[in-house]
Amino acid sequence: MILPTSDPPRGPLHGVQVLDLSRVLAGPFCTLLLWELGAEVLKIELPGHGDDTRAFPPFQNGESVYFASVNRGKRSLALDLKSSTDREVFNGLLAQSDVLVENFRPGAMERLGYDWPTIQKHAPSIVYARVSGFGQTGPYRDRPAYDLIVQAIGGMMSINGPEGGEGHRLGVSLGDTGAGLFAALAVASALYERRESGAGRLVDIAMLDCQTMLLEAALVRYFATGVSEKPSGSRHQVIAPFDVFRTADQPIAIGCANDHLFAKLASALDRPDWAKSERYATLPARHLNQPDLKADIEAALASDSAAEWLEKLGSAGIPCAPLHDMAQVASDPQLAARGAFVTVDDPEMGRLTMTGSPFHISGFERPATRPPAPNLDEAREAVLDELRRQRIRRPAMPPVW
Amino acid sequence: MILPTSDPPRGPLHGVQVLDLSRVLAGPFCTLLLWELGAEVLKIELPGHGDDTRAFPPFQNGESVYFASVNRGKRSLALDLKSSTDREVFNGLLAQSDVLVENFRPGAMERLGYDWPTIQKHAPSIVYARVSGFGQTGPYRDRPAYDLIVQAIGGMMSINGPEGGEGHRLGVSLGDTGAGLFAALAVASALYERRESGAGRLVDIAMLDCQTMLLEAALVRYFATGVSEKPSGSRHQVIAPFDVFRTADQPIAIGCANDHLFAKLASALDRPDWAKSERYATLPARHLNQPDLKADIEAALASDSAAEWLEKLGSAGIPCAPLHDMAQVASDPQLAARGAFVTVDDPEMGRLTMTGSPFHISGFERPATRPPAPNLDEAREAVLDELRRQRIRRPAMPPVW
Repeated sequence: MILPTSDPPRGPLHGVQVLDLSRVLAGPFCTLLLWELGAEVLKIELPGHGDDTRAFPPFQNGESVYFASVNRGKRSLALDLKSSTDREVFNGLLAQSDVLVENFRPGAMERLGYDWPTIQKHAPSIVYARVSGFGQTGPYRDRPAYDLIVQAIGGMMSINGPEGGEGHRLGVSLGDTGAGLFAALAVASALYERRESGAGRLVDIAMLDCQTMLLEAALVRYFATGVSEKPSGSRHQVIAPFDVFRTADQPIAIGCANDHLFAKLASALDRPDWAKSERYATLPARHLNQPDLKADIEAALASDSAAEWLEKLGSAGIPCAPLHDMAQVASDPQLAARGAFVTVDDPEMGRLTMTGSPFHISGFERPATRPPAPNLDEAREAVLDELRRQRIRRPAMPPVW
Repeated sequence: MILPTSDPPRGPLHGVQVLDLSRVLAGPFCTLLLWELGAEVLKIELPGHGDDTRAFPPFQNGESVYFASVNRGKRSLALDLKSSTDREVFNGLLAQSDVLVENFRPGAMERLGYDWPTIQKHAPSIVYARVSGFGQTGPYRDRPAYDLIVQAIGGMMSINGPEGGEGHRLGVSLGDTGAGLFAALAVASALYERRESGAGRLVDIAMLDCQTMLLEAALVRYFATGVSEKPSGSRHQVIAPFDVFRTADQPIAIGCANDHLFAKLASALDRPDWAKSERYATLPARHLNQPDLKADIEAALASDSAAEWLEKLGSAGIPCAPLHDMAQVASDPQLAARGAFVTVDDPEMGRLTMTGSPFHISGFERPATRPPAPNLDEAREAVLDELRRQRIRRPAMPPVW
């Protein structure tokens, strides 16, 4: 194993070596997921500058917490792929790796001399994931992209935000994290196949394509009806009641996606008649009469506080929830019980807390800590030493096949 | 192979048999992804009623387009797991399957007599993915959940929507689709490991945990600063400029996440001085002076139309985009070139168009059509015939190991 260990949690991808040329979020989120599942990740960065997100605020003792969370555990090596010395190092690493991930603009790898046939020459059975804004093909392939750009042109913003509004970017970078998830899933699936076939694969993931799949029903509804939906606030476009409702004090979320749950809600609100009324008895009827239904529900909820209603509706088995902010999420007892947060002791930054992993897989422990993100180029000596020592390269096809 | 084929596109998960007890969206989206990657999916539904989403509007010739898109290609068998005859069928299917997926409330499978040890008795090396709102452990485990509920309690709503607003549910069901993605990734990774070890795995995925990971930097920033972020409209919380800006007519999105791109933008707006000014030269400075910067950019953009600016900024290599609605997404030339949409010819519904797959993997064709979603229980005869015929069961461990 040529990469210095990046101490991933033990997981099903144990032993997988990921060579990571990616920057900012979509690619690094993909390799973070692979790392959380047990893979080793060596991050290749631009000498001097490194990943753009090293400069993203806020900072703790001068270093970016954003970079620290997305790149924990990874090792860093700075390489200039235009220098022949560095290319030799890179070629050696390629031959040792199972997975290569990058999220450059299409054409950048080719300009560096690393087209797919060349990569395959160095690593015949590598799984090579390319993540880009618009994909490696098509009229927009050369356009630069960020999460925002893809959310805008991909229609995500047009259905997000308050009713009557013009639409807003999601409060999270789903353009990036969505693509990272799809890319990681494609990589894991290709690794599964490769264990039998030995086949290397080129995976071309476009943020825009992923965004389109995550539009989910909005798009299939458009194709069926010809109507472009508008933002609907917190309300689901077709299910009712499925929204945020006022109580005597704080608003709460209530969702009933079938008639059975709605009947329970009607009873809990002391209006069992609703479940038999023509206006509200069926899901299509409630969809049609949603504004009236919302007013009726809020009138019923006005008698008591959010806490009282959450208690009452919750014990009746009706899906409901308070609206939490980050502080409340950070102190949520369920997330604590699930070990959702982990700590990192970084030599320069001190202690950090961040989201760990949503993967609970039997037989694998879930450590409560993670190793820190790397300083730029900190694995240089370890990697170069190992490359020098190693005369006989690990065969390109791992022995497990 | 006991399951009647569900005609998935050829992909890396070819040959994987998925037994799917899931309903509504999080579980079905997971099995849709596995199916798009080549796995066979047999959907087990409640007799008479079936998946709740069969009743979700809108309808085309009386059938739900929502159900049709998420369940295309899958086969349907109605089983009552409380009936001993049906349990026998289910046990036979379990023994033939590589993956079991369900998204019941925790405890439901146990009450049906299918706890993990029992499932392993029938299928020693099965990968069993349980998707639930809050997970199989912790104080909230018994609470019912929907996307909305998890977005509310998980803090997602608190950072989504216009600046100054109270926060809104995302316009898409990320609570569900996010969990489906994480679950599919865990399943593919466990299948990868199983090819070598033969180990079955229990995967416990909570929508809330996944949501928390998708909060991404908002939560790590909270832990670092102690400040709960509020909705920031279309603007990124820390990167500037990264927002929607007015022009002479329509608004456009512009994103510059490093100083180099910002300098390009400043030049394109005929204000090269900005890149050297104390207020705007660095990312932290632009973050601090974001309101001024926005006003300055909009003043510069006021001279021309969105189309003119997109042309000018685009050719200068600055990430920018128009804000598209569903109709524009549906007719986007890039998505057409990528084969993002597929058609389904359904015997009852007629022709449907829907999002295909974002997976572009070398060596696998991307068909332009998909088979329709199943009518309830339509695979009954085929499955029962096959179970009757088959005296010698397929060994629990597939021969590829």
